[in-house]
Amino acid sequence: MLIIDELIDRILEKGNPIVVGLDPELEGIPDFLKAQAEEEYGNTPQGVTTAILQFNKALLEILHPVIPAVKLQMACYELYGKWGIEAFYQTVQLAKELGLIVIDDSKRNDIGNTAAFYSKGHLGQAPLFNGLTSETKADFLTVNPYLGTDTIDPFIAECLSHNKGLFVLARTSNPGASLYQEALSDDIPLYQKIAADIQEISSKHKGNKGFSPFGIVVGATWPEITGKLRNLFPNIFFLVPGYGAQGATADDIVPAFNSEGLGAVINSSRSIIFAHRKSEWLSRNEKPENFALAALEAVDQMREDLLRSLRQADRLPKNW
Amino acid sequence: MLIIDELIDRILEKGNPIVVGLDPELEGIPDFLKAQAEEEYGNTPQGVTTAILQFNKALLEILHPVIPAVKLQMACYELYGKWGIEAFYQTVQLAKELGLIVIDDSKRNDIGNTAAFYSKGHLGQAPLFNGLTSETKADFLTVNPYLGTDTIDPFIAECLSHNKGLFVLARTSNPGASLYQEALSDDIPLYQKIAADIQEISSKHKGNKGFSPFGIVVGATWPEITGKLRNLFPNIFFLVPGYGAQGATADDIVPAFNSEGLGAVINSSRSIIFAHRKSEWLSRNEKPENFALAALEAVDQMREDLLRSLRQADRLPKNW
Repeated sequence: MLIIDELIDRILEKGNPIVVGLDPELEGIPDFLKAQAEEEYGNTPQGVTTAILQFNKALLEILHPVIPAVKLQMACYELYGKWGIEAFYQTVQLAKELGLIVIDDSKRNDIGNTAAFYSKGHLGQAPLFNGLTSETKADFLTVNPYLGTDTIDPFIAECLSHNKGLFVLARTSNPGASLYQEALSDDIPLYQKIAADIQEISSKHKGNKGFSPFGIVVGATWPEITGKLRNLFPNIFFLVPGYGAQGATADDIVPAFNSEGLGAVINSSRSIIFAHRKSEWLSRNEKPENFALAALEAVDQMREDLLRSLRQADRLPKNW
Repeated sequence: MLIIDELIDRILEKGNPIVVGLDPELEGIPDFLKAQAEEEYGNTPQGVTTAILQFNKALLEILHPVIPAVKLQMACYELYGKWGIEAFYQTVQLAKELGLIVIDDSKRNDIGNTAAFYSKGHLGQAPLFNGLTSETKADFLTVNPYLGTDTIDPFIAECLSHNKGLFVLARTSNPGASLYQEALSDDIPLYQKIAADIQEISSKHKGNKGFSPFGIVVGATWPEITGKLRNLFPNIFFLVPGYGAQGATADDIVPAFNSEGLGAVINSSRSIIFAHRKSEWLSRNEKPENFALAALEAVDQMREDLLRSLRQADRLPKNW
């Protein structure tokens, strides 16, 4: 089964299109985890990444029954060099063992041959003296398209070999996204041109639900653009960041979905994984060890919020 | 002294604007190095990256007296996960000890807060439980601008704190570069708009030689565009890939330089580091252990080639 169909199946099973962003920042990690890790490994990168890994483990154990997928922001791990990379792949491995789809949010790209190295490193296998490596990789990778589609082709080839998928940046969620992404290409904004190019590839690799494993990133902070792209490209799956801490609301998310309530996963990171730091949670005086329950409540609240808006727009999938 | 002035000083001292790309691919590494590493660490990622590190060390020891800088292509290291990252930073450390300027060619970017993590990870320091990490980082980082200048700002802030620099992708060297890079922004091609935005930042941070630490990438495979950008933006320093294996000639490189023969570093990777695999070298039956001498000869030949073209164009720096 194509990985995009596996993702959609998990969304339908769990009645939830929310992807939790495991984007750990040291200051948001509970003190007891930091103290344990520092006692074991000292004030070192290994200590910090041990705390990060324990933080991720606790979140995954509590959240995996209710979400279809997680997204790991590579920058948060790469910050700690080789120790961070180790924690990244240990998290990927654990998430896969728990049955989650994993999105590697690395926004990589480079010219031809080098793009092939990135695609093998993030989605496939690396050459050894004899044979290939066998480390568990993520299911989807985010890719930056600025260099051109000839640099996306090696990633697509790798996906087709290993049943993986991509989310290519079209329209990002940051305030300055329009600056270059609205440059005109063939008289349409660049983000739309990129989506059209992905659509062309997508149409050749459709799965059972009409979507292909080659999707795009569309920021929830631009709901009009989201709606336009959804209408123009009904068969492209969207990864939608920007809800919560970045300011997009549940109503802003609705245009990402088609009339059957499919077509997108909605990411939230800080609002969920750091929910134990919010005053509502703190005022309840729960044990620090229960911090992941705050994340579970935040996912439930966000899901209710999204479902309410989807219901109002008559786009709620059946039986949710 | 600003890092851009250090780079220019090394170019002038050595009479050479060539940056060697340490982009190791397993198949290009001499068999004796692979055998030694496999004997020590087995058929593992650690074995492969040990061979890569020994390969880099031999090249750096022979080449450092004649070149100003090296560029490390992150994809070649990241391919091997944490072991690759370790080899990357060990190579950075050694290159710095040998007095070279180091360019981290990772083409990173992400939205605001995440861009700050990448900039700290690649150019600065990461937070520990107390204080910050102290690993040696590269001097320059390549950055992808597609997300907008608000995502480049965190990298610039990091550079200003740690005396580092950037090369922002404007026009890449791959065949498909024009597809998105020639979209029109304010009626000019996007690569030119990006260069103009970098120029605006550059003009506020000029060093002794008139250049700032905030440069751009311009592919040598597009000599007319290179010349146009040189004329429009006399104070932006260029990182120029595409010579050699990618097809650009010494004459194609000339437009990157100003009338004083300054303003660019020219990268070559495969043509130099894998020169020991060319038939001219193989036919001489040198000992395999001397493979780095083939790279030295390739640098000398490339330098002669560039200098001849610069001399013909009357752009050779004095005393070269």
